[in-house]
Amino acid sequence: MADDKKLTTRAADFSAWYNEVVLRAALADYSPVRGCMVIRPNGYGIWERMQRALDDMFKATGHRNAYFPLFIPESFLHKEAQHVEGFAPETAVVTHGGGKKLEEPLIVRPTSETIIYSMFAKWVQSYRDLPLLINQWANVVRWEMRTRLFLRTLEFLWQEGHTAHATYDDAEEEARRMLGVYSDFMEGWMAMPVVTGQKTDAERFAGALRTYSCEAMMQDNKALQAGTSHNLGQNFAKAFDLKFQAEHGGQEYAWNTSWGVSTRLVGGLVMTHGDDVGIRIPPLLAPIELVIVPIYRSDDERERMLEAADRIMRALADWERRDPGRLRVHLDDRDGMKPGAKYYEWELQGVPLRLEIGPRDLEKNQAILVRRDTREKRPVSLNTLGEDVADLLTRIQEDMLIAARERREEHSMRHRISYDDFRALMDGEGAFVYAGWCGSPECEAQIKEETKATIRVLPDEEFRSAETPSTCLKCGRPATAEALWAKAY
Amino acid sequence: MADDKKLTTRAADFSAWYNEVVLRAALADYSPVRGCMVIRPNGYGIWERMQRALDDMFKATGHRNAYFPLFIPESFLHKEAQHVEGFAPETAVVTHGGGKKLEEPLIVRPTSETIIYSMFAKWVQSYRDLPLLINQWANVVRWEMRTRLFLRTLEFLWQEGHTAHATYDDAEEEARRMLGVYSDFMEGWMAMPVVTGQKTDAERFAGALRTYSCEAMMQDNKALQAGTSHNLGQNFAKAFDLKFQAEHGGQEYAWNTSWGVSTRLVGGLVMTHGDDVGIRIPPLLAPIELVIVPIYRSDDERERMLEAADRIMRALADWERRDPGRLRVHLDDRDGMKPGAKYYEWELQGVPLRLEIGPRDLEKNQAILVRRDTREKRPVSLNTLGEDVADLLTRIQEDMLIAARERREEHSMRHRISYDDFRALMDGEGAFVYAGWCGSPECEAQIKEETKATIRVLPDEEFRSAETPSTCLKCGRPATAEALWAKAY
Repeated sequence: MADDKKLTTRAADFSAWYNEVVLRAALADYSPVRGCMVIRPNGYGIWERMQRALDDMFKATGHRNAYFPLFIPESFLHKEAQHVEGFAPETAVVTHGGGKKLEEPLIVRPTSETIIYSMFAKWVQSYRDLPLLINQWANVVRWEMRTRLFLRTLEFLWQEGHTAHATYDDAEEEARRMLGVYSDFMEGWMAMPVVTGQKTDAERFAGALRTYSCEAMMQDNKALQAGTSHNLGQNFAKAFDLKFQAEHGGQEYAWNTSWGVSTRLVGGLVMTHGDDVGIRIPPLLAPIELVIVPIYRSDDERERMLEAADRIMRALADWERRDPGRLRVHLDDRDGMKPGAKYYEWELQGVPLRLEIGPRDLEKNQAILVRRDTREKRPVSLNTLGEDVADLLTRIQEDMLIAARERREEHSMRHRISYDDFRALMDGEGAFVYAGWCGSPECEAQIKEETKATIRVLPDEEFRSAETPSTCLKCGRPATAEALWAKAY
Repeated sequence: MADDKKLTTRAADFSAWYNEVVLRAALADYSPVRGCMVIRPNGYGIWERMQRALDDMFKATGHRNAYFPLFIPESFLHKEAQHVEGFAPETAVVTHGGGKKLEEPLIVRPTSETIIYSMFAKWVQSYRDLPLLINQWANVVRWEMRTRLFLRTLEFLWQEGHTAHATYDDAEEEARRMLGVYSDFMEGWMAMPVVTGQKTDAERFAGALRTYSCEAMMQDNKALQAGTSHNLGQNFAKAFDLKFQAEHGGQEYAWNTSWGVSTRLVGGLVMTHGDDVGIRIPPLLAPIELVIVPIYRSDDERERMLEAADRIMRALADWERRDPGRLRVHLDDRDGMKPGAKYYEWELQGVPLRLEIGPRDLEKNQAILVRRDTREKRPVSLNTLGEDVADLLTRIQEDMLIAARERREEHSMRHRISYDDFRALMDGEGAFVYAGWCGSPECEAQIKEETKATIRVLPDEEFRSAETPSTCLKCGRPATAEALWAKAY
């Protein structure tokens, strides 16, 4: 295989490492359409598990799924002034259908606020119809010029939640609740710690009153905006005449929220956990949690070991795990391939646990378990294998979150930093820098221009420093808020 | 509510009944984009359960999910001659992206053979890479002029399986296997019996060697093509240079299959099982299997009944059902709405079972179960409620299939019929007519022109008549095959 040469290391070239590992682990591939990727089964399997977990969380918080058209009449996009300004430049436009030129061009949805709130206006009559809590799993298209597999593609898959409420407070509560769901998912399932907070006006979603975000640190110390939640106020309700009969009489405009995460998360997972031998998938999101590799030297041994491995696989797959369902086990019974080559491939693909079993292990009624995250090996008795595997998977999930959190904290700066040092840091290894901000868009814009760092969020209380910074990182005037600065994807 | 007036009956106007019931049961709605529908939560919930069941069946037969681009370069469509002829006239074309005219227009996929096999050509090197068994859940666009909710829309949701094999036999086996999976799903989950068989050349998929289909009878005696599976031969492999190193040396072109079902199935479900009060969902596909309606006359009674109903709901939801997972139960605790109004709504929406409980029932430690399919009522003890509900749901699932099969058989004709009688039948109430065919495309085309009936399939052996028809329905010459004729959606 041409893939036998070693991966570029993260230290040598993080960006090259990322592309290589995504391609070699067969998560995705380039397509013949500029900027569009193919998500291969290994990558899609992770996305499917992400979808399942998120979907369960959305349903547990009262949301229902629906599906709205891919196409949006061009005029709809123009009904909300900021929205069109934000999205019109990056749209794909259908001008012909069925062999004829269309009277009105159709936009391939870059996001669905306009089409969805036009439907909400039809469905909502009274306060009794509220809250209306809808989610959609869909593809969207944004005409990006510089694309990266998973991180920024012309077309991507995502979910977009859209809700309507009777009051500002209800909408605000919903926007915050869904930010919390995202944060819980990213830490609990992806083992990817995030800082939550509010975006500045410059970074707000086009058409929103407020945008909240989850920001994760990648291993090159850049931030990944991993999910956002918007309080849309009444902007879209007014544009689409989304009114309701209030409980105490009179017609009022509804209050909306929208929130989304995308296949970008798969890229975030790779850049949070990958190492120089491949990706590392947290057990909860791994399509295969444990791979069994039988070891043998002769045909006779092969038969015995395959039989034993098959027995172990069945026992593990049948083993009653309380949570999260049956163990996902795969037996690698390919012949004509050495165990070492198999290890190499499964490590590249990030399977959390490997079970090796050879004739001498079998004699001792044991097997060897190898963790992908730490590459630690240990023998285990076959008698208690189910419990041991389940416990170890739980441990790996926890340890991956702890490791990622420690890494982030090591590369976060909370003490006073001069602007010159800040520039040097951003030019060099990068970091999450918590620093004062005077609140002026000018300081924000200048820093961005000079360092490429942006305010990722004004962090929520739990992420703020014990001692509030008193002066602006840039201008030295009194700070009105603490801001989290970083370069970002 | 404006919806309080009665539904048009099926007998009065089946087509009007269908549109009304889809809208009133809130399965779908018209959108502001011509020919595109919105799938509302009630409809999407059914689709989600269909997806889950089919996806499990695809995985159990060795397929893995992936995702390919929405856009297809126009030149790709032209690489397979029949394919472009079939699909080019009904495409939506993106001519502008990011504010600029594109060098090559992009087609919004009407189906993905071209883009997928171009990727397969990149991934497949050797016979060891085969079979390659891929499925994609996606939206597709076909520029239809006359659209119907679920049945024929510009955009629809579907899955498309795409596979590559080393031999013709392997591909043929796969095409038949997936037809069997569809048929099992339609009968086992949708309670919708189907006739399987092969399409004639006139009705074959554009680019296929052979097309197999599942055909279901709707209550207006028209056929619905519910799912198709294609043996594509080497047509696409040759067009996209999909070759492999054969086991015994030399380069060979791979053999492909593709197969798909779509949101059209939701329309099929409605037209198979709906009655004059609403839709009827087979339990296995019902997002809610049982709805609890508490009955009370005073505030005091209300409190007691809600408490009891809540207890029952929890007990049922916790009850350990072996298969297919937990009971899906909903408590309708809306205040200010009479039980009758609730019954009306849940019957319209097709929930398979209703549990009514009032103060006198509670005293007797019982509740009333009402089947949606037969509207039969019976008291049940609260002590054995879990078992009784589970058994009844199983029964309903079975009975719905039996009823649909009996209905179809009543409207199927297998005895000799003159062409004049056939025309009269197709002009009138319609039917599935099994009759001889001489094999000539002219007879097929003439019958279609004169009666609007088409050959749905040349039925598989198990659906053929005991006595093979000897002459062609149209021309009287010797028959070369038995054909199933019907008008179709």
